Amino acid sequence: MSHLPETVEAKLALITRNLQEVIGADLIRKKLEAGEVVKCYFGTATTGRPHIGYFVPLTKIADFLNAGVEVTILLADVHAILDNLKAPVELVAHRVEYYRHILTNVFHTVGVPVERLKFVVGSSYQLSAKYTMDNFRLCANVTEHDAKRAGAEVVRQVESPLLSGLLYPGMQALDEEYLGVDFQFGGVDQRKIFVFAEEVLPKLGYKKRAHLMNRMVPGLAGGKMSSSDPNSKIDFLDTPADVKKKIKAAFCEEGNIVDNGILAFANAVLFPISRLRLAIAASGAPDDGGVKPFVLEGAPEGTVFSIGRKPEWGGPLHYKTYEELEQDFADKKVHPGDLKAGVQEAIINLLAPLHRRFAEDPAFREAELKAYPPPEPVKKVKK
Amino acid sequence: MSHLPETVEAKLALITRNLQEVIGADLIRKKLEAGEVVKCYFGTATTGRPHIGYFVPLTKIADFLNAGVEVTILLADVHAILDNLKAPVELVAHRVEYYRHILTNVFHTVGVPVERLKFVVGSSYQLSAKYTMDNFRLCANVTEHDAKRAGAEVVRQVESPLLSGLLYPGMQALDEEYLGVDFQFGGVDQRKIFVFAEEVLPKLGYKKRAHLMNRMVPGLAGGKMSSSDPNSKIDFLDTPADVKKKIKAAFCEEGNIVDNGILAFANAVLFPISRLRLAIAASGAPDDGGVKPFVLEGAPEGTVFSIGRKPEWGGPLHYKTYEELEQDFADKKVHPGDLKAGVQEAIINLLAPLHRRFAEDPAFREAELKAYPPPEPVKKVKK
Repeated sequence: MSHLPETVEAKLALITRNLQEVIGADLIRKKLEAGEVVKCYFGTATTGRPHIGYFVPLTKIADFLNAGVEVTILLADVHAILDNLKAPVELVAHRVEYYRHILTNVFHTVGVPVERLKFVVGSSYQLSAKYTMDNFRLCANVTEHDAKRAGAEVVRQVESPLLSGLLYPGMQALDEEYLGVDFQFGGVDQRKIFVFAEEVLPKLGYKKRAHLMNRMVPGLAGGKMSSSDPNSKIDFLDTPADVKKKIKAAFCEEGNIVDNGILAFANAVLFPISRLRLAIAASGAPDDGGVKPFVLEGAPEGTVFSIGRKPEWGGPLHYKTYEELEQDFADKKVHPGDLKAGVQEAIINLLAPLHRRFAEDPAFREAELKAYPPPEPVKKVKK
Repeated sequence: MSHLPETVEAKLALITRNLQEVIGADLIRKKLEAGEVVKCYFGTATTGRPHIGYFVPLTKIADFLNAGVEVTILLADVHAILDNLKAPVELVAHRVEYYRHILTNVFHTVGVPVERLKFVVGSSYQLSAKYTMDNFRLCANVTEHDAKRAGAEVVRQVESPLLSGLLYPGMQALDEEYLGVDFQFGGVDQRKIFVFAEEVLPKLGYKKRAHLMNRMVPGLAGGKMSSSDPNSKIDFLDTPADVKKKIKAAFCEEGNIVDNGILAFANAVLFPISRLRLAIAASGAPDDGGVKPFVLEGAPEGTVFSIGRKPEWGGPLHYKTYEELEQDFADKKVHPGDLKAGVQEAIINLLAPLHRRFAEDPAFREAELKAYPPPEPVKKVKK
């Protein structure tokens, strides 16, 4: 997939595939028809250690990049500072750097062109006089009620909510204008904020943007994957042993395809990435040392995902589509232990080139060390 | 009163006299004892035409200046823009200039030293990166509930309140830090905002300030004097005929000293200003052409306020203190018509030097014209 799809329809199909919802596809189509570069942004607050749940949006962002979209990843440091006032400003700056390293390297290991990918740090424009005045103007155009409703699914709901939570939805709208994008991309949990953005930007004299939403993918332990729940996340730098331990502990009930973080991850990440890697291999691009599809040797042609089951349990399984795997799991033809083993191998395979890059890049390692310094040894306090 | 009071106690007494409430007087005393210059700020949004109700805080500010306090008047243009989004930004800039002219000239005509008076325009620092980040930090430390409670008496209470109303109290707190003051001065209607400021600044690592509060003075028509209610206000530039018409229409019931805007204005403005002018005259300062106390010729020594009653109704009345006038009015020894006549003459006298300055200063006149341009003639629309 080293060259762009050629027709408007093909590009639009690639941009919008596998999404749960698209609002304003016409805006994107018009840009494509005019032969202009479509631009989008995806925002992430640079707080906790990024975990492999990031592969979900990044896999979709790979589609945007492959369709020729210019993608901005907003490293929302201002939000990160506000969300965790205890983290010193310098620490947040280090985390911004670490996020930049991790995410760039992930795109490299996925095999996606990064010339049209850029990172923007929130504080580089969110503290400017123009943005600030626009933020004030927005606040003079938005009721408390509307701001609260917009953030209802994303802003932590507590008994005594903070003012900052009311500002986030408006800032996310302004970011679309200031980053100069045609659409914003995020999980469908952002839906109310996205709709709010479409309503509020025209009030400030700015044009409304399109919104593309990924479906929510449960964490490996079930539930929303969150960097604050250590049981639900696999860190990008987790060793194969860590991965095995966490996959082993994950909830994965025989025949249950609904509440199943393992299957969901296979669907949202492993199948698409394996396809990307197959396409790269087919294009004859040079082998980037270990960036391989999740397919076993000897698999039939067209296989996208293999599970290396032992011969005594029936031998390896090969799937061309996720739907076939899901059907087999629903029919209990695939045992949870086998599914876990297959996914675990794929994740270890997925992370291997990232670990190699980490080992070889001193700047990457330093960024990690500064962003998440090892905890100080606990001092014993004399009574 | 051309020289400062000498002792700490005398200065503190002048700074705090005639106020309804003082919180944190010790902070001011410490500064005075250390021999440092005490600084304060008074904020006003540059929206509607300033009316003579401004004489109330300005009369108190004259005390601060006479006590050696450095006074900053914050011309809150950002608030003005937010409060009236229909007013173009350029118009607000013109209004800032007009406010600056009016207020400076008022101090001149009151006879107060203005070397320690300065004006600061809100947008000169409220849009800076540091202020903006502090505003975000504040919003991450303040609950919606607390912000709403703080603004309850000042922010317009409507069914669907705007987000901006939640930001004002916090900004008023930050302004104390950014203007580098020791105390903020305002009407007692600001009390909740002031208490909020004392609570919130230490959370951001800034020191809490003292707060000095004027009592509320009802408008001449009764009720709070407001620039949006044309019946309750006398404009600084109103002609003597305008003044007579508005005073005539004012509510002033015989013997009623409670709900009486005329008496309240005499107390808060006319007596103190007459005393200032008497002190200036006694100091032998050159006559500034018409800046005279409100005392009739032939009044007994010590008179501060005279009412020129006709001989057939008992002849002129002379008062050394407001309390004597109030007592006479309560006892129905002063008829509402006579009180109105006396106050009316004093207001015309009060405004005369301002009008002279307006007539003689083209920049002042131009500022007025640009700030409040005459309404366009209404075009007839054909059906």
